[in-house]
Amino acid sequence: MNSAMIRFILGRVLRIEAILLLLPCIVSVYYRESQGRYYLAVAAGAFLLGCLLSFCKPKNNVFYLKEGCVMTALSWILMSIVGCMPFWIAGEIPAFADALFETISGFTTTGASILSDVEALSNTALFWRSFTHWIGGMGVLVFLLAVMPLNGGSPMNLMRAESPGPSVGKLVPKVRQTARLLYLIYVGLTILEFLFLLFGRMPVFDAICTSFGTAGTGGFGIRNDSISGYTPYLQWVVTIFMILFGVNFNAFYFLVFGEIRKAFSMEEVRYYFLTIVAAIALILPNTRLIYHSIGIGLRHTAFQVASIITTTGFSTTDFDQWSQASKTVLVLLMFIGACAGSTGGGIKVSRFIILIKSVRRELVSYIHPKSIMKIKMDGKPVEHGVARSVNVYFITFVLVFAASVFLVSLEGRDMTTTFTAVAATINNIGPGLELVGPTWNFGFFSDGSKYVLMFDMLAGRLELFPLLILFYPTLWKEMFERRMHVHREPRSKEKG
Amino acid sequence: MNSAMIRFILGRVLRIEAILLLLPCIVSVYYRESQGRYYLAVAAGAFLLGCLLSFCKPKNNVFYLKEGCVMTALSWILMSIVGCMPFWIAGEIPAFADALFETISGFTTTGASILSDVEALSNTALFWRSFTHWIGGMGVLVFLLAVMPLNGGSPMNLMRAESPGPSVGKLVPKVRQTARLLYLIYVGLTILEFLFLLFGRMPVFDAICTSFGTAGTGGFGIRNDSISGYTPYLQWVVTIFMILFGVNFNAFYFLVFGEIRKAFSMEEVRYYFLTIVAAIALILPNTRLIYHSIGIGLRHTAFQVASIITTTGFSTTDFDQWSQASKTVLVLLMFIGACAGSTGGGIKVSRFIILIKSVRRELVSYIHPKSIMKIKMDGKPVEHGVARSVNVYFITFVLVFAASVFLVSLEGRDMTTTFTAVAATINNIGPGLELVGPTWNFGFFSDGSKYVLMFDMLAGRLELFPLLILFYPTLWKEMFERRMHVHREPRSKEKG
Repeated sequence: MNSAMIRFILGRVLRIEAILLLLPCIVSVYYRESQGRYYLAVAAGAFLLGCLLSFCKPKNNVFYLKEGCVMTALSWILMSIVGCMPFWIAGEIPAFADALFETISGFTTTGASILSDVEALSNTALFWRSFTHWIGGMGVLVFLLAVMPLNGGSPMNLMRAESPGPSVGKLVPKVRQTARLLYLIYVGLTILEFLFLLFGRMPVFDAICTSFGTAGTGGFGIRNDSISGYTPYLQWVVTIFMILFGVNFNAFYFLVFGEIRKAFSMEEVRYYFLTIVAAIALILPNTRLIYHSIGIGLRHTAFQVASIITTTGFSTTDFDQWSQASKTVLVLLMFIGACAGSTGGGIKVSRFIILIKSVRRELVSYIHPKSIMKIKMDGKPVEHGVARSVNVYFITFVLVFAASVFLVSLEGRDMTTTFTAVAATINNIGPGLELVGPTWNFGFFSDGSKYVLMFDMLAGRLELFPLLILFYPTLWKEMFERRMHVHREPRSKEKG
Repeated sequence: MNSAMIRFILGRVLRIEAILLLLPCIVSVYYRESQGRYYLAVAAGAFLLGCLLSFCKPKNNVFYLKEGCVMTALSWILMSIVGCMPFWIAGEIPAFADALFETISGFTTTGASILSDVEALSNTALFWRSFTHWIGGMGVLVFLLAVMPLNGGSPMNLMRAESPGPSVGKLVPKVRQTARLLYLIYVGLTILEFLFLLFGRMPVFDAICTSFGTAGTGGFGIRNDSISGYTPYLQWVVTIFMILFGVNFNAFYFLVFGEIRKAFSMEEVRYYFLTIVAAIALILPNTRLIYHSIGIGLRHTAFQVASIITTTGFSTTDFDQWSQASKTVLVLLMFIGACAGSTGGGIKVSRFIILIKSVRRELVSYIHPKSIMKIKMDGKPVEHGVARSVNVYFITFVLVFAASVFLVSLEGRDMTTTFTAVAATINNIGPGLELVGPTWNFGFFSDGSKYVLMFDMLAGRLELFPLLILFYPTLWKEMFERRMHVHREPRSKEKG
């Protein structure tokens, strides 16, 4: 294993984070808050550590999927630990586990908070909280790919490890170019939302933070009542942009380059919109009665559906008060999630398409055992390896989910709270139901449960395997052996 | 499609059921109850209909997996409709949906009841209720295979459709012989339990019904308090036999023929016992406190764990009062289920072994992308097709589960009730938690939800695909076309 390269990349990531930490410092100066100095101190520390780690350039900068996964997982853990420091040192979130929870929730774009009163935070902290969503949405390693020259097939392994979805499609042949295009679309859409919000007279600071939260499909609000205090126009703007940030970014690429037909023929995008419309249609009869008006009912329904399916987690109303059937629709949406190649979480629409087609193929194999039916997506056959890995992904997801539910249930909370707390974190949504409903928070959990939920947030954002391989014993053995005998061939065959 | 053969087999199944319906008539005569005449009337009707259906012998008695599935699914539906008639006509269960629910629950060995007072039933009805468990446990089609001469590879298709587990292993080369051996073991173990219960001074009638319920891993009790009124000795006997009926019957075959080593080296059986021990160890610290004694705690824990993992559903205590963590363990056991090739339900231990090994293989593929790792079971490599179909089975299971939860949630019950009602029926267990806990019943559900849960019970018992293909549109089109143009080749190729 190329551990020198892992160290080097970790150093680079830290240096980027240090630079990003300067932004809250500026906010601090603008609002004349004292908290800025903590951010500056942490930034300085992170930069120094980053320089130390990436001081020696590794002789061999080729790395494989394994290293890509390890550096991604470690980067996210390291970034979260460094990112939570200002909250903790400044005393705005006094407990370390809470500060780490809040930061992981930010970077993974979950938006689950342990704070009962976010309005008590300084503007600096509010800005950093929302900014972590924006950083995590597209991913700092994708950013690194956009700015750092890396040769060979290596960068693709990094991209594959950090980007969500069953298979990573490159927009253009070069990874670096792809990463840049993705960030261009990301920044462009964020600015567009910011302008639309300003146009609706949202205060500038609110508009910035809300845009960050929407773009990363994060969901940290800067008000205790999330988005419900804003005007209907602003709520609709957020609704539409949440839906847009849940779309596969490839579609935007096609749109920008005039291939409109291609954008609209993407199966995943069509099913994504279909699911949204179906969910609204299922919930509307219920909300129409609650809010005594079809207009208000539609607004709240569309907002909540968009917020949950894109795994953002903003809210304009307490959906825990909705009917059981409506809540079940929302819980199902939690698992479906947004499109692959978007900033959203969940299992992803394209995975569900492949899963359902696998089931259909199995049914057909009972009727025509000798027929060979290929799974197709967008008219093209899905590679056997991709279909298999989607199946295994789903299985792994359910197993990790079940194990987490068991661990959190040791706290003795009711089953709905436990179940939806895990669902809301592993799918990177934020609020769940009952005790973790939109008007409550995750602060009451014990530290043990918080660490389980932190693991789930990271597992959800990194799509399980990059995080899980850290627990695979031979990985570390190999890393250690490799350092002892540098000249040995690393590609050993495994059987068993 | 060979629809003549399907018709023929359905007729045979009805005739067998008619004969089986005579047993409750004998019970009726013994207890001088008047209900027997309804059973006799239904038996006569079923026999007549059965003779009509199987009057013409089909010219071609070869059939494929497709026909095997269709005849299995239709047999079970038909048997349930006929089997519920005596309850309904005699007025012991006045509503048809309730009578059908109770009978499907019986045949599928679920044991979920809509009755709040079972002790009000006649002995005849109680006997028939428990006897349906015993019939459904091993399956009437397997019985048919044991007694009816069928040539070619056809019978295997019937066996594959009705028997639980990822792959059907024949004990001996001939299917007929295998079916006979299975029934021999089944009858032998049932008689053994009956004798052990008699030895503990259980009344004969109770011992017969309890043995039927245990053998089929069904769970209908004949007392309102299930098994809790019996002595600790009797509870331990039931515990041990529940565990035994959850073991893969191949292990008993090996034991009987002196291949003890082979029996104990079966991976599935070892993990099955390991899971039971682990679950007891996890729950015991909680129950020891509740019952103020480690002995009583162990008895109740072992009983409930055995009852849930084997998907029997008897109870000796209200486990809904246990701690949240203990209940979560039980809910997880619901899904694991018993061994393949036993009479138990659930997803099955062997499937979980293959699922977990698939996940492990995927992890290894991240670390060594070029290595080829085969999934092994009992030292032998698992065929690629089996592994794939286990994965797809799990996916289908979760999707059917989610759809059912949504449909039942339309009733507006709390999430735990809805979730565990579906879990308890699709896994063929019986009791769930909250409103469907061991001291309650399924009677309060609307007819709509009852039909969803009936579907789930059948889907769980027949392992999804035999039932699901009934809903596949081309199947019926083909059957119809086939009857119109008998001479056309049936094996069309499907692409999609």
